[in-house]
Amino acid sequence: MTAEIVSVGTELLLGQIADTDAQHLGQRLAELGIAHTHRQTVGDNLERLADALRLALSRADIVFTVGGLGPTEDDLTREAIAKALDEPLKEDEAVVRNLREWFAKRGLQWIESQRRQAMKPDCAKTINNPNGTAPGLLCEKSGKIVIALPGPPGEFLPLVDGRVGDYLRRFGSGEVIHSRIIRICGLGESVVEDRVRPLLSSANPTVAPYAHPGEVHLRLTAKAPTVGQAEALIRPVEARIKELLGDAVFGTDDTTLEQAVVELLVRRRKTVAVAESMTGGGLGERLTNVAGSGEAFVGGIIAYDTVLKTALLGIDPHLLNDERRGPVSEECARQMAIAMQRMARTTFALSITGNAGPTSDRGAKPVGTVFIGLAGPAGCAVKEHLFHGERGFIRRRSQQAALDTLRQSILKAG
Amino acid sequence: MTAEIVSVGTELLLGQIADTDAQHLGQRLAELGIAHTHRQTVGDNLERLADALRLALSRADIVFTVGGLGPTEDDLTREAIAKALDEPLKEDEAVVRNLREWFAKRGLQWIESQRRQAMKPDCAKTINNPNGTAPGLLCEKSGKIVIALPGPPGEFLPLVDGRVGDYLRRFGSGEVIHSRIIRICGLGESVVEDRVRPLLSSANPTVAPYAHPGEVHLRLTAKAPTVGQAEALIRPVEARIKELLGDAVFGTDDTTLEQAVVELLVRRRKTVAVAESMTGGGLGERLTNVAGSGEAFVGGIIAYDTVLKTALLGIDPHLLNDERRGPVSEECARQMAIAMQRMARTTFALSITGNAGPTSDRGAKPVGTVFIGLAGPAGCAVKEHLFHGERGFIRRRSQQAALDTLRQSILKAG
Repeated sequence: MTAEIVSVGTELLLGQIADTDAQHLGQRLAELGIAHTHRQTVGDNLERLADALRLALSRADIVFTVGGLGPTEDDLTREAIAKALDEPLKEDEAVVRNLREWFAKRGLQWIESQRRQAMKPDCAKTINNPNGTAPGLLCEKSGKIVIALPGPPGEFLPLVDGRVGDYLRRFGSGEVIHSRIIRICGLGESVVEDRVRPLLSSANPTVAPYAHPGEVHLRLTAKAPTVGQAEALIRPVEARIKELLGDAVFGTDDTTLEQAVVELLVRRRKTVAVAESMTGGGLGERLTNVAGSGEAFVGGIIAYDTVLKTALLGIDPHLLNDERRGPVSEECARQMAIAMQRMARTTFALSITGNAGPTSDRGAKPVGTVFIGLAGPAGCAVKEHLFHGERGFIRRRSQQAALDTLRQSILKAG
Repeated sequence: MTAEIVSVGTELLLGQIADTDAQHLGQRLAELGIAHTHRQTVGDNLERLADALRLALSRADIVFTVGGLGPTEDDLTREAIAKALDEPLKEDEAVVRNLREWFAKRGLQWIESQRRQAMKPDCAKTINNPNGTAPGLLCEKSGKIVIALPGPPGEFLPLVDGRVGDYLRRFGSGEVIHSRIIRICGLGESVVEDRVRPLLSSANPTVAPYAHPGEVHLRLTAKAPTVGQAEALIRPVEARIKELLGDAVFGTDDTTLEQAVVELLVRRRKTVAVAESMTGGGLGERLTNVAGSGEAFVGGIIAYDTVLKTALLGIDPHLLNDERRGPVSEECARQMAIAMQRMARTTFALSITGNAGPTSDRGAKPVGTVFIGLAGPAGCAVKEHLFHGERGFIRRRSQQAALDTLRQSILKAG
């Protein structure tokens, strides 16, 4: 059983809205084990839409249309399906009655143009849409199925997660597609690939790498009759990857790096504070995004301006005014981390100072130069980084490096 | 001139990621007046991808591929373009040199598999990609153009907004679709709609409202022969909206609220510091996300844990331990803002203290209770808010309210 989605609407092509409906339906099809190899997006044009449907019907068993079922003249999905299936278009009296009731119940004046929504290809059954006026359509003809769904997410999602999803269950190959994401930090994409290379040719689960700023994700996707069996296929490959990558793996699925760090700190009963210059509070923001972070994260100081580095953290003004060292230096990162650890009385303190650009001050270090300090029970270590990219990317990469430095340090301490 | 986008990646079909790249490219094509009638999405499968490209080339003059240019074995776009254009695939020595330099510059070990990224159909020119390893490709053959772009948004967006956009300008048709977004803070969507109601039926430009956490956007979209003429259609409607909404309008197009605040501070030569509890540094993070924010934002204190509220900000422990008041109280927000202003010697200091959930401590205020303090030249004012939603939403809404409080206060001071 193969499915294809045809998303309808000029506003999708113009990029005025994101096609979240197709994304959601794609997830559902994967979960149901219905193969889905193509998606088409077409504007509100009858001929092009009918052609897209003919193409979809030539290669898929179930074709979904999303959108174009409303009452206006550019809602052409009903006509296009009738054309593609070579069926006459007829008015459904029951739908007209429902529409009139819907209007009366809300005290709205009936508008004749609403009748468009009661038209359907002769072979179609209507799918009751409790959250809108246009019903969905289910057409079965010559061994093919066309399911027309309304576009507004408030109408679309309840149908896909409800009665349409239930209807589709019978077409599930008996096979589900189930994924696990393994999240990796501290190794580049090519190093990760190199280490897990023999697994990249695995057929079930497949293993695919994805690069994100300061992270690499490996997606393991298995096909099996049940989710449990898919998990059983994934488990040994996941275990092997963890063996090959060791501590570089920080979590699975939706686990964020900050979650992994907070969980590790809480489990080891350690605490952390932050002294941020270039990231301006971003490290604290991410740590406190984790519910329950208060058990491990106490807070910190945003010493963005040089004056505050002295006023709040007591950094030596001579160091800050020193041509060679200055605020973006190993020594400054060290003093920031040590002062923060002392002031907050925490196990660890992280410091970040650097130059995120876009411009570099006179005599300052090049854009992308970042010093990350970590003060802990064993003393203070500072690492210099040089990140390439725009301001937001450099700031993000610096947060990632800082969080991972802390994580690795806790893991090494055992 | 007609364009078609082919989005590449099994992860798109499975709904694992949203196709934001195609949405963005669709917007750019509309702005350039390049017609764009179809989009296809295909998985990482060589035959299907080559077929999709052949179909696109049969009906469009310019075909874009997005994604599938990385170094891994499921990155098949280069091969598929070569097949569809019937061109041999060759290695580009200059790209290999660039790749080796890229690795050397970052002190990374060279990996042979990276060479895949230097392969290209014989007729292709490479498009320099300053934010990643895989170059884009520009193929011109038999009157058709294929442009291959990398999928990671950090690489894709700068190319589309930069050199690829510049290249496309020559193909623009005559009629452009041009939009302006008017950004509003401090008024709900229904209030905004009510105030601008007569304009919502405008035909050219159209006016459409969109709600975001703590912001409302009005999108004005005009069609005209040139961007200049579209702007001329938009201008009077924009002016009328600004009249109707007054200071609630904080910016247009991509202007963020933090940008509006930083620009206003810089223009008035004022400075600000932050004392954050619940938002954990998020306010500082947003302000420092603005390039040049150092002229107005000096830094602050993240007093997440109660102990740090006393240790770093000198908040009275009696207040913090008081059953009735405690850390989530008007009095605490007031003391935080005043202490921060004094310590940082800034014109203004913002404070945020509240309960973002998911759980509420014994005796504490209900989840969503937030106190925002603003200390300024005229003294300190605190406002209580109650936001409904999950943790991230409450934190975001609190930042929005804090930034807007500061903005409104500066505007009122004149």
